[in-house]
Amino acid sequence: MLALAAARLGFRCHVYSPEEDSCAFDVVQASTCAPYEDEAALGRFAGAVDLITYEFENVPADTAAFLAKRKSVLPDPKVLAITQDRLIEKEFISELAVATAPYAAVHSAVQLADAVQMIGLPAVLKTRKLGYDGKGQAKIAKGTDPMAAWRTVQTAPCIMEGFIKFEREVSVVAARGADGKVECFEVIENEHRDHILHISRVPAGVTPSLAAEARRVASKIAKAFDYVGVLAVEMFVVRQGRKHHVLVNEIAPRVHNSGHWTIDGCTVSQFEQHIRCVAGLPLAKPVRLGRRVEMVNLIGAEVKDAARWLSVPGASVHLYNKREIRERRKMGHVTRVWPK
Amino acid sequence: MLALAAARLGFRCHVYSPEEDSCAFDVVQASTCAPYEDEAALGRFAGAVDLITYEFENVPADTAAFLAKRKSVLPDPKVLAITQDRLIEKEFISELAVATAPYAAVHSAVQLADAVQMIGLPAVLKTRKLGYDGKGQAKIAKGTDPMAAWRTVQTAPCIMEGFIKFEREVSVVAARGADGKVECFEVIENEHRDHILHISRVPAGVTPSLAAEARRVASKIAKAFDYVGVLAVEMFVVRQGRKHHVLVNEIAPRVHNSGHWTIDGCTVSQFEQHIRCVAGLPLAKPVRLGRRVEMVNLIGAEVKDAARWLSVPGASVHLYNKREIRERRKMGHVTRVWPK
Repeated sequence: MLALAAARLGFRCHVYSPEEDSCAFDVVQASTCAPYEDEAALGRFAGAVDLITYEFENVPADTAAFLAKRKSVLPDPKVLAITQDRLIEKEFISELAVATAPYAAVHSAVQLADAVQMIGLPAVLKTRKLGYDGKGQAKIAKGTDPMAAWRTVQTAPCIMEGFIKFEREVSVVAARGADGKVECFEVIENEHRDHILHISRVPAGVTPSLAAEARRVASKIAKAFDYVGVLAVEMFVVRQGRKHHVLVNEIAPRVHNSGHWTIDGCTVSQFEQHIRCVAGLPLAKPVRLGRRVEMVNLIGAEVKDAARWLSVPGASVHLYNKREIRERRKMGHVTRVWPK
Repeated sequence: MLALAAARLGFRCHVYSPEEDSCAFDVVQASTCAPYEDEAALGRFAGAVDLITYEFENVPADTAAFLAKRKSVLPDPKVLAITQDRLIEKEFISELAVATAPYAAVHSAVQLADAVQMIGLPAVLKTRKLGYDGKGQAKIAKGTDPMAAWRTVQTAPCIMEGFIKFEREVSVVAARGADGKVECFEVIENEHRDHILHISRVPAGVTPSLAAEARRVASKIAKAFDYVGVLAVEMFVVRQGRKHHVLVNEIAPRVHNSGHWTIDGCTVSQFEQHIRCVAGLPLAKPVRLGRRVEMVNLIGAEVKDAARWLSVPGASVHLYNKREIRERRKMGHVTRVWPK
């Protein structure tokens, strides 16, 4: 989707991916399929392009550093070093005086016991690295053995997070240009199913002041990273007495699934906005089209519903052309726009 | 733009073009750059794909016939045989009892004199084949020598058309599915500059009954062709007494420049609609997004304005990545959507 947005603006893309069946290969001028550790291939790739960006937060730090010595890599790979580790990410957010769920590092049985003491149960253990869509997570229910939960994630270095009673999950997709200017898309309300994003909706069911707070938080994070590009901040909306607040759950240093609605439902897509950022072009002011917009992921066998979605008025179907249907795999999405 | 629309739906494209610097090569999985007469290349191309479509009305009839023997080619190449010849096209339209400007064949000096007699001056001479954007056309002003005008187009076989005093130029982009169902986009108002489309606007400044007439005409033509895909019908709006009517000017058997606004300003683009038609998928019901939409072509050096357009609220910039700026060459376009 990034490559398609770049093409509209007249840019030619070269995709580097270790995945043999990367669907991006099918929509670009050139492609390199090689491991992230293949320095010869990385060198040729860097030599062939003007500028490098990424849409996967687990690009190894060494790979990003190798490329950054040869060509401009945006967003700056130092962001990866922070967001690839849940503990460092949480500490980074806390230093900005931005609220998160209570958390503690879990590297030993002693720390685990201390964390349970401090945070209380229920709580969630998450591996510091490489988790997504619920992978690398274990819930510790009240009255259960925390060690048993930790063992389900191979007693890997973890972070324990307090279980948050949230009213809603929201995200803010923010773009920051090379000149430091930030444009946030409107706050998005997200519904997860089995730890995977299922539906995103705009407008979100939040007050204008909460929306402003959420956007302020995302802008603050983008600024603190000296970020150039699009990032997404996932947040919980919690109630404290009469007031609502946001707690940051996670930062994604890339275009984000919850922003897919912008392709069909906004005057500029998150993908084009990202390309504008990294190419040094002026950012667009995003304005929603339609009185409301809803994005539904097609996960696993749900992709077979695509034919039905094609006939739904105002629905735009996006299929990712993945070679194989797998359970829990994002195969496509549908955006519904309700014209005003 | 067709390839980008196909990619969204999960289709992989293979582009065949004799143009070395075809910008479509940069956004597809495979490409063949070879002359239209290269049967070996055409054969390999047909062998590599499931289905063939085109977005250029001057694909040679022999090429289309060669391919159609090997794979399904949609729209049916018989349409090309009609629309590649202005005289045959006009006769086809007239047989449908659809109004056009008065016309006559001009293959000889005698026919030229007869045509002037019948149609009157001023009039326009157009070569029967291969004209577009004002190329292959010559105006015959009142009191000038018709032969001199004919010589400016090398006395090629021509059609003479009466000069129409029109109030507006409009077009209808219509899609017809494999099941015969037709979906028309709304009537588009077009402004030409120096014979090249400059601006397209929706809604057009026409009454609902005239809009219905224009759509009926486009549907009738699509049906008469037994067409599968998107076509555009350019029309003049003329006044007869108190009533307005349309006269068909030209048929384009393909996605059309005047329909480019649909990418950003409609719930479905003409490109996706065409892909849906030829792939046998259900057509989408097009609904405009925004209270009005305007598409401006960036012609020749105007492409340098792109940077300015990037900052205009609601404007989407499309650059075609053509290697060289040439006068009168379409280099890109901008769509402005005014949200409701």
